[in-house]
Amino acid sequence: MRTTVGIIGAGPAGLFLSHLLHLRGIDSVVLERRDRGHCEARQRAGVVEHGPAAALRAAGVGDRLDREGSVHEGIELRFGGRGHRIDFRALTGRDVVLYAQTEIVKDLIARRLADGGDLRFEAEATAIEDVAEDGAARPRIRFTRGGREEVLDCEHVVACDGFHGIGRAALPADRVRTFAKTYPFSWLGILADAAPACEELVYARHERGFALYSMRSAEVSRLYLQVPNGTDPAEWPHERIWAELDARLAVDGADARPNRGPITDVGVTPMRSFVTEPMRHGRLLLAGDAAHIVPPTGAKGLNLALHDVILLSEALHAWHGGDPGPLDRYSETALRRVWRAEHFSYWMTTLLHPDPEASPFEDRLQLSHLEHIAASRAAAGSLAENYTGIPEP
Amino acid sequence: MRTTVGIIGAGPAGLFLSHLLHLRGIDSVVLERRDRGHCEARQRAGVVEHGPAAALRAAGVGDRLDREGSVHEGIELRFGGRGHRIDFRALTGRDVVLYAQTEIVKDLIARRLADGGDLRFEAEATAIEDVAEDGAARPRIRFTRGGREEVLDCEHVVACDGFHGIGRAALPADRVRTFAKTYPFSWLGILADAAPACEELVYARHERGFALYSMRSAEVSRLYLQVPNGTDPAEWPHERIWAELDARLAVDGADARPNRGPITDVGVTPMRSFVTEPMRHGRLLLAGDAAHIVPPTGAKGLNLALHDVILLSEALHAWHGGDPGPLDRYSETALRRVWRAEHFSYWMTTLLHPDPEASPFEDRLQLSHLEHIAASRAAAGSLAENYTGIPEP
Repeated sequence: MRTTVGIIGAGPAGLFLSHLLHLRGIDSVVLERRDRGHCEARQRAGVVEHGPAAALRAAGVGDRLDREGSVHEGIELRFGGRGHRIDFRALTGRDVVLYAQTEIVKDLIARRLADGGDLRFEAEATAIEDVAEDGAARPRIRFTRGGREEVLDCEHVVACDGFHGIGRAALPADRVRTFAKTYPFSWLGILADAAPACEELVYARHERGFALYSMRSAEVSRLYLQVPNGTDPAEWPHERIWAELDARLAVDGADARPNRGPITDVGVTPMRSFVTEPMRHGRLLLAGDAAHIVPPTGAKGLNLALHDVILLSEALHAWHGGDPGPLDRYSETALRRVWRAEHFSYWMTTLLHPDPEASPFEDRLQLSHLEHIAASRAAAGSLAENYTGIPEP
Repeated sequence: MRTTVGIIGAGPAGLFLSHLLHLRGIDSVVLERRDRGHCEARQRAGVVEHGPAAALRAAGVGDRLDREGSVHEGIELRFGGRGHRIDFRALTGRDVVLYAQTEIVKDLIARRLADGGDLRFEAEATAIEDVAEDGAARPRIRFTRGGREEVLDCEHVVACDGFHGIGRAALPADRVRTFAKTYPFSWLGILADAAPACEELVYARHERGFALYSMRSAEVSRLYLQVPNGTDPAEWPHERIWAELDARLAVDGADARPNRGPITDVGVTPMRSFVTEPMRHGRLLLAGDAAHIVPPTGAKGLNLALHDVILLSEALHAWHGGDPGPLDRYSETALRRVWRAEHFSYWMTTLLHPDPEASPFEDRLQLSHLEHIAASRAAAGSLAENYTGIPEP
């Protein structure tokens, strides 16, 4: 079996790359170890930056995003019992679109299949071979499907297989540097069949911990609570979750409680920062979570994945046109944005989460920092341009 | 002996307060344990924010500052072998004045004496008594001078006696909260009889450590190196200092070495953050370093001291006019600016000093943060408005 670009992973990165390559006349095969239903049900991020939203539209897969997604022109920072709006439009001229990653995945799968794309579900990549750029490169992916081992020969392998995938591990250890940080807290996230009580995302810093009020649709709320690492969701009966959200989202002199409704999903997410350098070794390229992880506070994970493959589709196109330059620069170019997003995600995380290990001095700095952002157009502008996505970091 | 306001400490805070009170017709006595020569020779900060510079001028003590001080409309951030200018004027419309604290002290002493002010040098305050606001307050300062113990009765005591003074200790321990942080590095500072090779301050982040290129005049350079805590200046022969400055201030493809000249002073300064709350107890008020310390990176120590006493002179004037409100609000009002400066000073310090305890991930974040400030008008603007001084934090 043979294709031009072998892609591992049918998340938003792998699927969008496959689609972008198709638009440029380059064929690809996507190998995904889970079934289609699983891919279309994974609950992940929901904030799409200005740039990636425009790229989805330009690639003809933005119709439902425009129809069902919701344009957000700002967010609210809430602390000390007061809310402070960060006006993205006024500060940057840009906005973001709230549209769940899982919907993007559905759109891309439907479109790839309609275009005759080759998506192989329940096909588990087991090895990436002969990718070294030494003249004798004969890149191939070994995978198993229905109990049979198969081989996909290709010109390039792109690993979009996430943090636990085989892609990153296929880079030679002596050429790779990794950077990591874990945080002393996690997020407990819920989906609830309840109309959001606010129109924009609320990032709340409260002495009891961080809370995030977000939404999936006019009928579904998505809410998060900072919890200690190792938290078992069983410790959090629904009534306790709602009471805690009420406390952390409280506003002086107003009723800011979330509307309640049946909770349909509860999960705990650890907070982690991770970067691999480089993102390329010969004919093997990494994109998305396979190369980097951010804590979810800055809403950058999905966006970085989309940026990576936009860059990669252009670079692979140039390579096929005889210009290896953009592909040679892929890792360096992508990592500039990656590190910007890593810094911003760390910054938003440490800005908004009371750290159980922090000193009283550091607690006060956090509040002074929040007050400065609420008062200073420049400080708010820096947040806004990072949140909506910097065109060229 | 009796006066209206008893002031402990003839640093810039105590002296400027005494002068400002004089302008409002309120008499004061300044007690200073060192002699005049010592006060006029202490080497300290040299960057005066826009606001305090204007206040010195408005109070008639800005002539020499305007004549000999040097207006700086920006600074340079240097990292990765390149310099990036932060243009204060373009970003904020404001600037700062480089004029050494020791010169401000000379100007204020001369002016107070010319105005018949009561400055008592070599008068060491030993106790502050009966300041509690309980109707029976009879504030007084005990001090020794020439071996004799004396008492200064007054309506208010203002302690401008620095971090190691008796003022802060006179607040009842059960009413006070303190906040502190030490940093895992210090500054080795030198004064050199060498014309500065650059016109603006250079804040350099280098893998070998932070360096700061500043100047006292057209003939005298003031340079700093990040060194480990506990460094003995004897470990740093002059040749080693110059070689290290050359390395840390290096710019790709250009000669950025400082001009060399005789080194006239070498000292090591630890980096510390400290805040006392509140800054008032009854008839006792704290100002400047007596209440708060910042690491010198943000050049905020002198400025906070001047802001404190500008506020205090207005509050004491109102009190004498029958309005206790401003004095009642003094601590809260002053602390807003203090915490802004504490955060900014911490931020500048952690931005520019490679932390020997940092992980590789944190090192990269630092570089990404610096690159963002160099590239983003909003991020640079936030630095600039803090550096030049926020009008109302």
